Amino acid sequence: MSTSSSSSSSTLNIGIIGFGPFAQFLAKTMIKQGHALRATSRTDYSQLSAQMSVQFFRDRGEFLEADNDVILICTSILSLSKVVKSMPLDHLKRPTLVADVLSVKEHPRDVLLQALPEDSDILCTHPMFGPESGKNGWKGLTFMYEKVRIRDEATCSNFLQIFASEGCRMLQMSCEEHDKLAAKSQFLTHTIGRTLGERDIKSTPINTKGFETLLQLKENTMRDSFDLFSGLFVYNRFAKQELEQLEHALHNVKEKLVQRMVEEQGLEKTE
Amino acid sequence: MSTSSSSSSSTLNIGIIGFGPFAQFLAKTMIKQGHALRATSRTDYSQLSAQMSVQFFRDRGEFLEADNDVILICTSILSLSKVVKSMPLDHLKRPTLVADVLSVKEHPRDVLLQALPEDSDILCTHPMFGPESGKNGWKGLTFMYEKVRIRDEATCSNFLQIFASEGCRMLQMSCEEHDKLAAKSQFLTHTIGRTLGERDIKSTPINTKGFETLLQLKENTMRDSFDLFSGLFVYNRFAKQELEQLEHALHNVKEKLVQRMVEEQGLEKTE
Repeated sequence: MSTSSSSSSSTLNIGIIGFGPFAQFLAKTMIKQGHALRATSRTDYSQLSAQMSVQFFRDRGEFLEADNDVILICTSILSLSKVVKSMPLDHLKRPTLVADVLSVKEHPRDVLLQALPEDSDILCTHPMFGPESGKNGWKGLTFMYEKVRIRDEATCSNFLQIFASEGCRMLQMSCEEHDKLAAKSQFLTHTIGRTLGERDIKSTPINTKGFETLLQLKENTMRDSFDLFSGLFVYNRFAKQELEQLEHALHNVKEKLVQRMVEEQGLEKTE
Repeated sequence: MSTSSSSSSSTLNIGIIGFGPFAQFLAKTMIKQGHALRATSRTDYSQLSAQMSVQFFRDRGEFLEADNDVILICTSILSLSKVVKSMPLDHLKRPTLVADVLSVKEHPRDVLLQALPEDSDILCTHPMFGPESGKNGWKGLTFMYEKVRIRDEATCSNFLQIFASEGCRMLQMSCEEHDKLAAKSQFLTHTIGRTLGERDIKSTPINTKGFETLLQLKENTMRDSFDLFSGLFVYNRFAKQELEQLEHALHNVKEKLVQRMVEEQGLEKTE
């Protein structure tokens, strides 16, 4: 066994599929840690990649042949299935760890289990942060993962160490449990942010502190794409019920208010 | 003219009607500034009042006869009309400034204009803060007011000085404009907090930052009474439309998600 492969600080060859803003955000820290990065993407990021010292492949076959220890999938939720199906996976020369960072987890788990060669390892992850919340480092931020199919524990551990060594709170959790909880938290939050966006709420001269947090939430949510939001809904089987229950809750609140209004109007008449 | 009445730092005799937590919160700063406070309330606060050096009157007639420069109404929104109607206003011995601090403004304006003797001045105000947001002082916090009927400018100015001297942002605004804007901000915020309370949202191991602000919003909203929330609705004529538009916005968001789901399912079939 070589020193490099047994050390927890081994440098890895990491190939990223989908090199958008979130992938670039993760890549910066990986490069800082000394890992060798490559990327491929539907968009041509060759110039940006060169600036970051990331090797960019326009040819997906060549990308897969480039001796990656880890292939990290950073596509959008909506495009995952199409992108994975379009990869010439027979170009993979050896068993490889394939990881994803999507904000839903059962869907990539199922797609990867179905599409990847049997000898590929699968690690499903969700870093619960992004360019905004992680701009001052990742310390204390949550990194969720499930070891869906891991034989090469050393490579998996080296990859997880990228996040652990930055101080992330490492949280092992099943993809199913993640999606249940994410529907009740992240998806709900985006839904409220989008609803406030739909209402086009604006700052007033008499903002309360609470209203100011909602204005901020709206801004943050609307900065994310509608593709992300709809991905959280379409590919999380628990989201639909949460949305219906949210509608129901708002309706109940309204009913209580209307009932109180009727009572008050009754009181006024008898006063 | 005596020095005390011409000075902007004159001490006032302030009689408070409704001595609940918000009134007590305001009273502390008024006492600190050297004003003489009296109070009456449906609940017997005589013990607490004694501790605070506030003279408590169980008899409303005696309270009104107690030579108040200012009568400050701190009742709940829902009880305002009943409380004002139950006051033996013929006990008022001289022209008095009557001010209120309710979170809706057209309603107290109308009630006071209707109930008070013609020689009473009326100042409608809304301090946009409370025991929580104002616990470290009032500097920079907004104090909204409308001079509804002011002849005795000196007393009115002395009363406003209570808030100005603490560093409040003094905002003159009509009651109508206040209620329009408050429906779009404070009422909307409470409605979302109550809806999240109805859903009973809870912290998860994978909270995003955005979800944590919603958890906090829910906690803060549910700490306020349902009486306050329903007051913001029943006695603000602009609130009903806001509530309907919020329901409509959530419905629109849902429609967009469902449409995207249908499109995605169509794409999957043709892939």
